[in-house]
Amino acid sequence: MAVRRAVEQLQAYVPGDQPEGRNVLKLNTNENPYPPSPNVFAALASVTADDLRKYPHPVAGPLRKALADLHRLSEPQVILCNGSDEGLALCTRAFAESGGRVGYLSPSYSLYPVLNDIAELVQTPYMLKDDFTWEMPEQIPEDLFFLTQPNAPSGRSMKREQVCELLQRCEGVVLVDEAYVDFSDWSAVELLDAFPNLLISRTFSKSYSLAGIRMGYLLGSPELIGALYKIKDSYNTDLLAQKVALAAVEDVATMKANSLLIRGTRNRVTRALEDMGFQVIPSSTNFVFAKVPDGVEAPTVFEALKREEIFIRYFPGELTGSYLRVTIGTEKEMDRFLDAVTGILTVEGREVE
Amino acid sequence: MAVRRAVEQLQAYVPGDQPEGRNVLKLNTNENPYPPSPNVFAALASVTADDLRKYPHPVAGPLRKALADLHRLSEPQVILCNGSDEGLALCTRAFAESGGRVGYLSPSYSLYPVLNDIAELVQTPYMLKDDFTWEMPEQIPEDLFFLTQPNAPSGRSMKREQVCELLQRCEGVVLVDEAYVDFSDWSAVELLDAFPNLLISRTFSKSYSLAGIRMGYLLGSPELIGALYKIKDSYNTDLLAQKVALAAVEDVATMKANSLLIRGTRNRVTRALEDMGFQVIPSSTNFVFAKVPDGVEAPTVFEALKREEIFIRYFPGELTGSYLRVTIGTEKEMDRFLDAVTGILTVEGREVE
Repeated sequence: MAVRRAVEQLQAYVPGDQPEGRNVLKLNTNENPYPPSPNVFAALASVTADDLRKYPHPVAGPLRKALADLHRLSEPQVILCNGSDEGLALCTRAFAESGGRVGYLSPSYSLYPVLNDIAELVQTPYMLKDDFTWEMPEQIPEDLFFLTQPNAPSGRSMKREQVCELLQRCEGVVLVDEAYVDFSDWSAVELLDAFPNLLISRTFSKSYSLAGIRMGYLLGSPELIGALYKIKDSYNTDLLAQKVALAAVEDVATMKANSLLIRGTRNRVTRALEDMGFQVIPSSTNFVFAKVPDGVEAPTVFEALKREEIFIRYFPGELTGSYLRVTIGTEKEMDRFLDAVTGILTVEGREVE
Repeated sequence: MAVRRAVEQLQAYVPGDQPEGRNVLKLNTNENPYPPSPNVFAALASVTADDLRKYPHPVAGPLRKALADLHRLSEPQVILCNGSDEGLALCTRAFAESGGRVGYLSPSYSLYPVLNDIAELVQTPYMLKDDFTWEMPEQIPEDLFFLTQPNAPSGRSMKREQVCELLQRCEGVVLVDEAYVDFSDWSAVELLDAFPNLLISRTFSKSYSLAGIRMGYLLGSPELIGALYKIKDSYNTDLLAQKVALAAVEDVATMKANSLLIRGTRNRVTRALEDMGFQVIPSSTNFVFAKVPDGVEAPTVFEALKREEIFIRYFPGELTGSYLRVTIGTEKEMDRFLDAVTGILTVEGREVE
């Protein structure tokens, strides 16, 4: 009896803290501060005993149709997943032989190397420059490439032309992870017709305010999506999540209004941080990635905020170690955050003097 | 760009039909005919916008604790999964190297070979005898062995002594799939202390009347369960399913009462079918597996029932081709089923004469 070597050696992905408490301000896992469409509660109230005792629709039929319509695609171009994480994991099993090659940007979503390790793939991180832009090599000989677009943790969006170049230069499947796309200005969905090697992942966790239900989906050619259907668990998404997600898609206006609010707050927070001496990467997401002012240590600010029960995210490392990642909350929440940072910098400044 | 060979060649698992209609009687996928605990509706009504917009507990903490208490185990011995199917898939990734060996009984759950193909494992089906008992070989040199116990589709339960023998003879991890255990007389949970290579899978889909929510769990040593925690998706079960399952566990009495009802109906249906000339395998599940009387063809009965909108399951093949698998419904539903079978046999009998 033994545990597989690759699993024994694995460093598991560590999700952000989920601290609880009345005074806690959670700006650490890019959750949406606004409630989802009120229709989701009507959907929950409509659930019957028959719904619960029977198996759910194996491909989430009505939800799949609604999403196909939303994106002007056909149903075989859409697959629902138990969170987009399941979609990413399916890709590591579907598009590379054992020992195959997979690439991803570094830094980006820290789950990618974990998934690649589980699938025993040979992985190449493509390093971003210190402004988090990418100098793309001429050849990208990967079977699978994960592109977080817009990027996390930097928040930066690539230009359409650069994504097209990647799709041309990469021999394998390019998975464009659009977890944050509803806070940005363009989506790769419009490129699907032109690039048969393009897959796009989406999630209900951010813009739809539904991280709790674990629902994501992938878009792509019927051929690529069809391969994923063959290996997904038979009933991979549950009935409750299907109903709630459908209600949210049918009221996409609420999602769009919340996203606009967040973009407005994001721009205000960016300016406020810049006024305090932070360098903020232009964000196309629901968070900002901000370099602390000279003479200030990022971990110090991170810990000081934590003492005030304000939780943000800090990623140690050469490229990211002087940055803080801050999820955009409500206007009032961000006032509290900005006030706290002002206070901390004042104290820090005095100590520096 | 290419789809992995193992995936291209894969024959995907085909779930049972989910026909819809007012007059449809679904006795084909072993769903529970009774509603789940009424507490689950209170749980759904208590869901808040904050619950939905935030990520769920990554290990389903409160539910895990309730299940550990229920089974008198420690929390690190329990892992919640997106349906027990996810748990089975995790095992194929955790307990065998690529090219490793996996065994399972044949016939049993037809998902096993699909999962093994996806993981590119070398698989050995261990054939049951024509009464669906098993003559166990002295050596079982597998890295992983799937034992459906009680078995599906036969419904037969193994004796405790035989399961202990398997646990001694198999070098690898033995996954005892107890999907139907609440309809039987004993569980392998009591063997966990004695056998470090034992894992047990459970589901909320059958006895708890909650197939819709996709929730299952595995029990075992902290070492084996710990390996699965390393490779599961970070947030693999959703908040709604966690809440609903917890409400159901806290009212385990409803599940037990429903299971007793079903066992009573099962015994009555068994006798009625035997009176008509069927040979029924002694069932420890919520279905019966019955061999049609001499001179009658199983597919003929299957198709005739379908014309009356009664859906059961038929598995072609040498061992199973003269059997029908029938889920136990309510008393009234089974009256309708038995009346229909009586009518069909009368017509068939006349044609034989």
